[in-house]
Amino acid sequence: MLHALIMAGGSGTRFWPQSRRALPKQFLRFGSDRTLLQEAVDRCRGFVPSERTWIVTGAVHASETARQVPEISETNVLIEPCGRNTAPCIGLAAMRLLATDPDAVMLVMPSDHVIRPVSEFQRTVEQTVAIITQDPAALVLFGVTPTYPATCFGYIQRGEPLIGSSGFRVAAFYEKPEVETATQYLATQNFFWNCGLFVWRAATILEQLERHAPEIATRLKRLQAVGAEQWSAALAEEFPRMPSASIDYAVLEKANSVAVVPATFNWDDVGSWQALARLLPADPDGNTISGRHCGVKSTGCIVRSTHQHLIATYGVSDLIIVQTPDATLVADKRDENSLRQLIAELERRGMSEFL
Amino acid sequence: MLHALIMAGGSGTRFWPQSRRALPKQFLRFGSDRTLLQEAVDRCRGFVPSERTWIVTGAVHASETARQVPEISETNVLIEPCGRNTAPCIGLAAMRLLATDPDAVMLVMPSDHVIRPVSEFQRTVEQTVAIITQDPAALVLFGVTPTYPATCFGYIQRGEPLIGSSGFRVAAFYEKPEVETATQYLATQNFFWNCGLFVWRAATILEQLERHAPEIATRLKRLQAVGAEQWSAALAEEFPRMPSASIDYAVLEKANSVAVVPATFNWDDVGSWQALARLLPADPDGNTISGRHCGVKSTGCIVRSTHQHLIATYGVSDLIIVQTPDATLVADKRDENSLRQLIAELERRGMSEFL
Repeated sequence: MLHALIMAGGSGTRFWPQSRRALPKQFLRFGSDRTLLQEAVDRCRGFVPSERTWIVTGAVHASETARQVPEISETNVLIEPCGRNTAPCIGLAAMRLLATDPDAVMLVMPSDHVIRPVSEFQRTVEQTVAIITQDPAALVLFGVTPTYPATCFGYIQRGEPLIGSSGFRVAAFYEKPEVETATQYLATQNFFWNCGLFVWRAATILEQLERHAPEIATRLKRLQAVGAEQWSAALAEEFPRMPSASIDYAVLEKANSVAVVPATFNWDDVGSWQALARLLPADPDGNTISGRHCGVKSTGCIVRSTHQHLIATYGVSDLIIVQTPDATLVADKRDENSLRQLIAELERRGMSEFL
Repeated sequence: MLHALIMAGGSGTRFWPQSRRALPKQFLRFGSDRTLLQEAVDRCRGFVPSERTWIVTGAVHASETARQVPEISETNVLIEPCGRNTAPCIGLAAMRLLATDPDAVMLVMPSDHVIRPVSEFQRTVEQTVAIITQDPAALVLFGVTPTYPATCFGYIQRGEPLIGSSGFRVAAFYEKPEVETATQYLATQNFFWNCGLFVWRAATILEQLERHAPEIATRLKRLQAVGAEQWSAALAEEFPRMPSASIDYAVLEKANSVAVVPATFNWDDVGSWQALARLLPADPDGNTISGRHCGVKSTGCIVRSTHQHLIATYGVSDLIIVQTPDATLVADKRDENSLRQLIAELERRGMSEFL
């Protein structure tokens, strides 16, 4: 049976001050009346019922998760004791799914990407599931066709086409490239962006972890051996000791039977205020507004406010202006490093109550 | 007896969004734990007791006035039905003072200027009172020695020195000049800025209004004739029909016995955020901060926040950033017209609830 696993961790710094450590990006709305987490759950409706939809998140995010998606029962929300990247997270979830369904097929999906329309998403998922049906040992990735030479994503090189499907074997993985290399990738038309969505059998990924990441698999097995009463204590003991590794690094780059299906949906990981602005419509002066704004001689700004708060701008260009009840950001839009540096400065000054 | 008259009207647009129509500048703090109105009242302590301190304000500001200066009794707070500039305001107050004290001498003072130190202010007031004692018909102005060729103030040209005082006869008044003219004024050392502070006998200013501004004086006399019961209705009838004129234009520029005393105190009318920034200390990056701020690569900004709200800035220069609970301003500091234009735009868009 097909299950959906929505990974909802996240540190919440890329959309500061709207996102916080306690309120990362998946809990926010971006040009929709649903949050990204709600959109992720909605997206699975129709082909995965809520009892087969699973969420992995941190303890600090459990209550907000329950508030936003009450249709997912508490037993389907897995709590990580800490963030250890995707490999331990996926391993833990695979173990949990196998306990309820020995034939579980997992659709693994980040909770904080924009994926639209849902119909195309479902069509692509069907293609991936078809590959698993044909080859139960397959690890299937979703490949997004690059539209520009991005240097912020990993790339997947496609190999030979798979018979009876729109997929391809994966020839190789490449880390985030320099722009010259990325430009070459685009020119060959043989590369996809790795968007962090996967489909595989739970049993398969656990076997692969055992083969390629025994430090993770060994601790997962210890967890599997304990009873319900010892579970929490054992998890708190074992999980933080697993190496922090991505599933790409821990398994996919080393495994054999890896396939990629071209995504027919629009995808964006919305990694920054600037990326968000590219997704949203702009006013005639090139400003991207959410909330109340009155601008005079103001161009190219990203303006967001909450609760009917007015942001008035005069004679400013290319600023990010984000108001929240306790903190307001005013930053040069053209510098992509602004938030990283500001957050480091807030920590340095002991102002981490705002993070 | 010496009375103090504090004029506390004001439209509240120059320090938007901190100042509002209902909360103009005199009710705000500027680098002090006392508001400008409280400072104005404090300034008169010692030589004018609270029962001889009077405040003229608008109905919409009466409760905030009472809250900020509870030591001034309600009977000493005169309510203008509407703003008609300084001539009707001063005439009304003079009439009221005369009713309690036929020998009343009035120190007339705006409520929203920064005047420090108090000791020098009192010393200058003593000089002006000495002139009135010598010449009961005198109208005495305070002259501020110009420090730069300001184009935003009126100028007073001094004439011959008065015997037995530090004052001078006033030779002429000049409206806000062009910068070339202002530069010439400075070079002669014979000019003062007109800072809107005056001392005269209440009886004298009423006589002068009768001579030079009969449209005002006639209506004041009608008011004088009505009893306490009809007072409010008569005021609401007569006051709005008085011509809106400054006391400078209505009387001083036309009168004979006008003197000026050089102010030995520091004076600033704090007419804009930019003017305020010049009064306050700046951080090493040239930012003038009030409230919580964390800046990286941010220079020359004026930053104000309320209630522990954090303003974080990155890569910005010469901005005015003012946060209040319901509205935030982000404007180019170098354009002095920003607020005027923004406020016009807010009115045009029907957003006047923020004014």
